[in-house]
Amino acid sequence: MAKKRIGILTSGGDCAGLNAAMRAVVHRSHILGWETIGLINGTASLLDENPEFRILKPNDMSGTVLRAGGTILGTTNRGNPFAFPMPDGSLKDRSGEIVDGFRKLGLDAVIGIGGDGSFAILKRLAEQGNINMVGIPKTIDNDIGMTETSIGFDTAVSVATEALDRLQPTAASHDRVMILEVMGRDAGHIALAAGIAGGADVILIPEISYSIDKIAEKIQAVKESGRNFALVVVSEAVKKEDGSKLEMTYQGGEKRYGGIGYYVSQKLSDATGYETRVTVLGHVQRGGAPTYNDRLLASAFGVKAVDLVKEGKFGRMVAWQNRQIVDVSIEDAIKAYQDVDLDGTMVQTARALGISLGD
Amino acid sequence: MAKKRIGILTSGGDCAGLNAAMRAVVHRSHILGWETIGLINGTASLLDENPEFRILKPNDMSGTVLRAGGTILGTTNRGNPFAFPMPDGSLKDRSGEIVDGFRKLGLDAVIGIGGDGSFAILKRLAEQGNINMVGIPKTIDNDIGMTETSIGFDTAVSVATEALDRLQPTAASHDRVMILEVMGRDAGHIALAAGIAGGADVILIPEISYSIDKIAEKIQAVKESGRNFALVVVSEAVKKEDGSKLEMTYQGGEKRYGGIGYYVSQKLSDATGYETRVTVLGHVQRGGAPTYNDRLLASAFGVKAVDLVKEGKFGRMVAWQNRQIVDVSIEDAIKAYQDVDLDGTMVQTARALGISLGD
Amino acid sequence: MAKKRIGILTSGGDCAGLNAAMRAVVHRSHILGWETIGLINGTASLLDENPEFRILKPNDMSGTVLRAGGTILGTTNRGNPFAFPMPDGSLKDRSGEIVDGFRKLGLDAVIGIGGDGSFAILKRLAEQGNINMVGIPKTIDNDIGMTETSIGFDTAVSVATEALDRLQPTAASHDRVMILEVMGRDAGHIALAAGIAGGADVILIPEISYSIDKIAEKIQAVKESGRNFALVVVSEAVKKEDGSKLEMTYQGGEKRYGGIGYYVSQKLSDATGYETRVTVLGHVQRGGAPTYNDRLLASAFGVKAVDLVKEGKFGRMVAWQNRQIVDVSIEDAIKAYQDVDLDGTMVQTARALGISLGD
Amino acid sequence: MAKKRIGILTSGGDCAGLNAAMRAVVHRSHILGWETIGLINGTASLLDENPEFRILKPNDMSGTVLRAGGTILGTTNRGNPFAFPMPDGSLKDRSGEIVDGFRKLGLDAVIGIGGDGSFAILKRLAEQGNINMVGIPKTIDNDIGMTETSIGFDTAVSVATEALDRLQPTAASHDRVMILEVMGRDAGHIALAAGIAGGADVILIPEISYSIDKIAEKIQAVKESGRNFALVVVSEAVKKEDGSKLEMTYQGGEKRYGGIGYYVSQKLSDATGYETRVTVLGHVQRGGAPTYNDRLLASAFGVKAVDLVKEGKFGRMVAWQNRQIVDVSIEDAIKAYQDVDLDGTMVQTARALGISLGD
Repeated sequence: MAKKRIGILTSGGDCAGLNAAMRAVVHRSHILGWETIGLINGTASLLDENPEFRILKPNDMSGTVLRAGGTILGTTNRGNPFAFPMPDGSLKDRSGEIVDGFRKLGLDAVIGIGGDGSFAILKRLAEQGNINMVGIPKTIDNDIGMTETSIGFDTAVSVATEALDRLQPTAASHDRVMILEVMGRDAGHIALAAGIAGGADVILIPEISYSIDKIAEKIQAVKESGRNFALVVVSEAVKKEDGSKLEMTYQGGEKRYGGIGYYVSQKLSDATGYETRVTVLGHVQRGGAPTYNDRLLASAFGVKAVDLVKEGKFGRMVAWQNRQIVDVSIEDAIKAYQDVDLDGTMVQTARALGISLGD
Repeated sequence: MAKKRIGILTSGGDCAGLNAAMRAVVHRSHILGWETIGLINGTASLLDENPEFRILKPNDMSGTVLRAGGTILGTTNRGNPFAFPMPDGSLKDRSGEIVDGFRKLGLDAVIGIGGDGSFAILKRLAEQGNINMVGIPKTIDNDIGMTETSIGFDTAVSVATEALDRLQPTAASHDRVMILEVMGRDAGHIALAAGIAGGADVILIPEISYSIDKIAEKIQAVKESGRNFALVVVSEAVKKEDGSKLEMTYQGGEKRYGGIGYYVSQKLSDATGYETRVTVLGHVQRGGAPTYNDRLLASAFGVKAVDLVKEGKFGRMVAWQNRQIVDVSIEDAIKAYQDVDLDGTMVQTARALGISLGD
Repeated sequence: MAKKRIGILTSGGDCAGLNAAMRAVVHRSHILGWETIGLINGTASLLDENPEFRILKPNDMSGTVLRAGGTILGTTNRGNPFAFPMPDGSLKDRSGEIVDGFRKLGLDAVIGIGGDGSFAILKRLAEQGNINMVGIPKTIDNDIGMTETSIGFDTAVSVATEALDRLQPTAASHDRVMILEVMGRDAGHIALAAGIAGGADVILIPEISYSIDKIAEKIQAVKESGRNFALVVVSEAVKKEDGSKLEMTYQGGEKRYGGIGYYVSQKLSDATGYETRVTVLGHVQRGGAPTYNDRLLASAFGVKAVDLVKEGKFGRMVAWQNRQIVDVSIEDAIKAYQDVDLDGTMVQTARALGISLGD
Repeated sequence: MAKKRIGILTSGGDCAGLNAAMRAVVHRSHILGWETIGLINGTASLLDENPEFRILKPNDMSGTVLRAGGTILGTTNRGNPFAFPMPDGSLKDRSGEIVDGFRKLGLDAVIGIGGDGSFAILKRLAEQGNINMVGIPKTIDNDIGMTETSIGFDTAVSVATEALDRLQPTAASHDRVMILEVMGRDAGHIALAAGIAGGADVILIPEISYSIDKIAEKIQAVKESGRNFALVVVSEAVKKEDGSKLEMTYQGGEKRYGGIGYYVSQKLSDATGYETRVTVLGHVQRGGAPTYNDRLLASAFGVKAVDLVKEGKFGRMVAWQNRQIVDVSIEDAIKAYQDVDLDGTMVQTARALGISLGD
C-alpha cells in the first residue's frame, strides 16, 4: 500500500481521552508506514496563510500525553466556517478557504475527533471539498447516537462521583442537604450515573420534569428514616420548576445563564427548612486525567479510524456497540441524538433503589 | 406479597464493590418491605452454635459503606463445607450442618455474592437443602462466564493503570524497563486492559505463550526508535518461558510460588542489558474504593437479585449482557469460564498498536 | 494512676482528619487504661434529657474511620449555648444546663476538637463549670494562632490543587481563563498554597486588596508571552474591587452572599475580552479523605491531648511549632488570629515567581 | 545586573517535584532577565562531543510539567565522573572533561537538584573547575541533613499511605496480616510516616533492630483484642532478624538483594499461624504526580536557588528550616546525614499509640 498522509484534529468542547485517541491514531499509522499531521486549533486554523500543524511521531505520544486531559492540538475556537465571525461583526461563509487549506496539506484523509456539532460541520466541509473523513466520537455528555459511549464520559462521571464521595461525610457531619451541580448540556447521563454510584437521594435530569414538592417529600422521608443528611445531584441542563430557563443577576447588573444548583438549593431550603449547600463542579469534569476506560475506548477508536482510512471507508464514525468496535454512517449518528432512556437500566435501577428523579 | 426475610453473604476473594452490592440489596428489599440478614464470614459461620449475623438497614449502608472496598460481612475463610478441615487434620463433610444453619435462620432466600468457586459450593448446598439461591458475580479477574463483567474488575484495572502512570515518569527519568506484576489468577484480563490503557510495550498473559527473545526484540525496537524507557505488564498467572511454574527460594530455605515479575525482569535484563525494575502490586488491587462503574454494576446487580427472589426465580445468577441486566443459569455460568478472547477487541487493539503479547 | 473517663467532641465546621484525631485519643486513652466517651453532636446535645454518646473502643476506630473525612460524632449545629435559639425565636443562656450535662457524665476531662469560635465557647463553659478542658485545633482555613498548622488544612489544599490540575488542560485546550473559587472564610491560606502549587497566574486573598486592572494586565502579559491560558484562584473571602461584599440576586428574588468567583470572572472577561469560566469547589474541600499529613498531625495532637489530661494541664491547646508538639494557652491561641503573613515564605515565593496577587 | 546564563540539572534517583523545582528556577530566572539551560541526563552528558541541552522557557514549564513526576531532563545514569566505567571495564577519572564541558557552555552558575551522593560529586567538580554551584535537595528518603524535608518525600509517603488504605479493607475481609514493603534505602522516614498515617500495627525501620517474637506478640495482641486483621510496614532497608542482609534466590539460580517484606511475611506466618500477604510498592513511590507540598517546597527552593546565584553565594544548598527557606553549606549538609530521630515526635507518637517498632 502506498504511504499515506493523514490529518487529525480535535473539535468542540475538550474532554479526557482526546490525547489517547490521537496517540492510537499515530501509533497505528506509524505501523502502517504512514505519516500523521496534527492540525493545531482545528479547522479554523486552515484560514491562516500558514496553518499551524505538527508532524506527530509515536514517541511524542508515549509518555505523559496518553495520561493527560485536554488536547495537545487545541480545539476550534474561532467559529463556524460556514458563518464565520468577521472583525466587522458580520458572518461570512469561509468554508471554501478551509477546503483549500486541506488540499494544500496534501492529506489522504482527515480524522476528526468531535461531537455531533463538529461532525455536522466536518461532514459539510468534507462533502464540499471531496475530503476523505472519518469521525471519532467524544463528549462528556454521552449524547452522541449510535455508539453506546463516547470518549470523555467515563472520566467526567468519575470526577462527579468522587465529588459526592467527598460531600457525603461533610453532609453527615452537619445534618445537611448537599447539592452537586454537574455538567451535561442537554442530557442527564452524567448526573444519573454519578448520582447512582455516589449514593444520591435525588437526581434531577433534563429528560424528566420535576416538582420541588416531590423532592422535598423525598428529603423529608430520608430525614424521618433517621438519616441526617441527603445528597442531591442536578444536571446543569435542568430548568426551573416551571420549565423556564434560570437567569442569575449579580448586584452589579451583569447577567448569566446557569447556576441551577443554587436555584434548587434555595427552593429546597425554603420547602424543608433544612440547611443546603451547593457545589458547582464545572470544568474539572473535563480536564481530569482520563480513566482507563476512556483510554481503552480511545485506543480502540483510534485504531479503527485508521483502519477505515486503510479500507477507504469514509463518511463513517467509529462506534462502540455490544463490546465491538464498529463503524456507522456519520450522518445517521448526527441524527440519532442519545438522551437518557427512560426505560433503560440506569433509570430502572435508580427507581428501584428509591432514588427520586423529581417526578 | 408477604414479607420476606432474605440472607446475604459474600464468599471467596474480596474485591471493590461488594458493599455497594449489599447496599443495593438492602435498599431494594426495604422498599419491598422485606428484611435483610447479613451472614458474617459466609457459610462456614453457620457451623457455629450461634451463627453471627447482622440485620442490615438502609441507613447502615448509606454513608461510607457504599464507597468502601472490602466487605463489611467478612468472607468465608474456614474451608469447603463438603470437605471441611477438622482440628485433627482430617476433612469432613459438614454440609448438613450448614444447611441446618440456613433453616434455623428462617430465610426465604439467600443471595450469594461470589465467584465461580463459591457458586459451585453454594449451588450444591442449595440443592441439598432446598434453599432458594441467587448469585451475584464478583471477581477482579473478570473470568466468570455469561456476564460481560463482574464486580471488582473495573477497580482492579484502575489501580493497575494508575501504577503504570506512576511508573512511566520514573522509567523515563532513568532509562529503565519497568515491570509491573498484576493480579489475575488464571486469566489475563487485568493485565491486558491496564497494559493498553497504561501504555505498556509488552503485556504477558497466561492465555498466550511468550518467548523472552520476542520480548527482548520489542524492547530493543523501542530503544532504537529513540525512546529511552519501556513498560512491561505481567499477569501473576504467567508461567516461566518453558511453561513450568516459577518457584522462588529464600536464603533461609523457605519456598513460595509467585513473583513471576522478578523472573521476567531478570531474564529481560540478561537478554537486553537494560536496567529493569519490578513492582508487585498485590492486594492493593482488591481493596481500593470501588470505581463508579463497579458501584453502578453492583447497584444494578443488587436490585436484580432481589427482583429474582420476588419472582421466585432461583438457581440463577444476575449478569450484564449488552447493556442489560439479565439472569442466567448459575450452573451454566460456572461452566462457561471466560478467559481472554484471542480474537476479541482488546487483543486486536493491542496488536494493532504494536504492543507485544510475547508471541 | 486511677482510671479516668474522658469525653471527646467535635465542634464547628467539619474537616478531614477529625476521626483520625479521635482515634489517636481513643488509642492513647486505652493504653493508659482509661475510657473514652464520644459526645454526639457536640455540647448542645447535653441539653437533651438523655444526651447521646458512644463509648469509643480502639477497634471501632481502626479500619475505615481513620481514613474517612467528616466526624463520626457529628458536630454542634444547634447554636451557641450562651444565646441558644429557642422555638419562640428568642435567645436564652442555657450554659448552665450544658455544664450540668457534663457533670452527669462523670467526666474527668473533655477534649474538644474545634476552631477558635468553638474554643471560645468551650473555654467559657469550662470556666463556668470547672471542667477540665483541652483543645485540639482544626480548621481548613489554617487561621488558628500559635500553631503552624491545624487539622484539615492539608487536605483542603490538596483538593483545591487537584482541581487546578484538572482545570489546566481544559483551559489550554480552549484558550481560556479559568477561575477557581476556594474556601477560606477570612484568611487566604488555601488560595495561596493551592495557587502556587497549582500554577496559578493570579491569586486573590482577602489580606490583599486587588485591582481588576492589575489582574487584567497580568492576564494580558501571559497571553502576550505566547501562552494561551491562565489560571486564577480566588478565595471565597475576597470582596468586590471596591471593598464591599458581593451579593448575588436570583431572578426569583432570593439573595445570597458568595460567588465572588463569578464576579471576578465577569469583570475579567469584560476587561480583557477573554473567555472565562468558573468552578466553585465548595464543600468537597472539607469532606475528602484526610491526607497523610492531616492524619499524622491528628495522631500527634490526639496523643498530646491525652497526655495533657494525664499531667493535669488544662485550659491548654495542643499545637505544632517547629516540628514539635507543644501546648499553649487556649486563651492566647484564640486571641492570636493567624492570617496570611505578607512577608512570609508563601507570599515571597508567589511574588518571586511573578504570580499576581492583585496589587 | 548583567544578564546571566545558568545551567540546571537533575542527578541521582528521580522523585516527584523535580520538574516543579526546575519550573521555579526557569520562572525566577526569566523575571531577572536570565537564560536557563537544562542539561540533559546530568553531568555525564558533558562527556559527549555535543552535549545535549535545552533552553528552558517559562511557557515550556507551565502546563503539565509542573504536575508531572520524573524529570524532563533525565538524570545521570552513566557513572561517577571521577571513576567512570569505560567500555573495557576499567574506571577512569574523566572529571576534567566534564569541567571543560561546563566551561564550553558559558554558564555563570549551575543549579544541581540532587541528593547527598550527587552533591558530593557536584561539589568536587565545582571545586576542581571553579564552577559556581548551588544545590537543591531532593530525595524520597528524606535523609539529607540540615533541611527538615527534601523534594519527593511528601509524595512518596502519600503513595505509601494510599496503599495501606487499600490494603486495610481486604485485610479485614479475609482476616489477614498485610505486609507492605516501602522504599527508603537507609532511613525509615517513609515507613514511619506512612505507617502512622495508614494505621499500621507494626512498623520496621532500619534504625531499630527488631525481633520476630516481639512482632508476633503484637499481632497476637491485636487478634486477641477482637480485631481480625493487622497491617505491617517494612522499610526496604530493614535487614534479617540477625542483622544480616537478605538474599533471594530464584529457582534458576539468579540472585538479587531485596524482598525483605517476603522474609518478614514468612517469619510472621510461621510464628503466628496467621495468613500473611505481601505488597512491594517499588517505584510507584517515585513517579507519582507531586503532592501540593512537594510542589510548594520545590517552588520555594527554586526561587531561593536563583536568588543565591544573584547574591553570588555558591557552594550552598537551599534548605527548609522552621518554616523558612534558608541556605546552608553544601559540605555541612552532605556530612549531616538525617536518619530517624529515635526521640523525635514521629517515634514518640508511634509508641504512644501502641504501634510496635519491633523492639
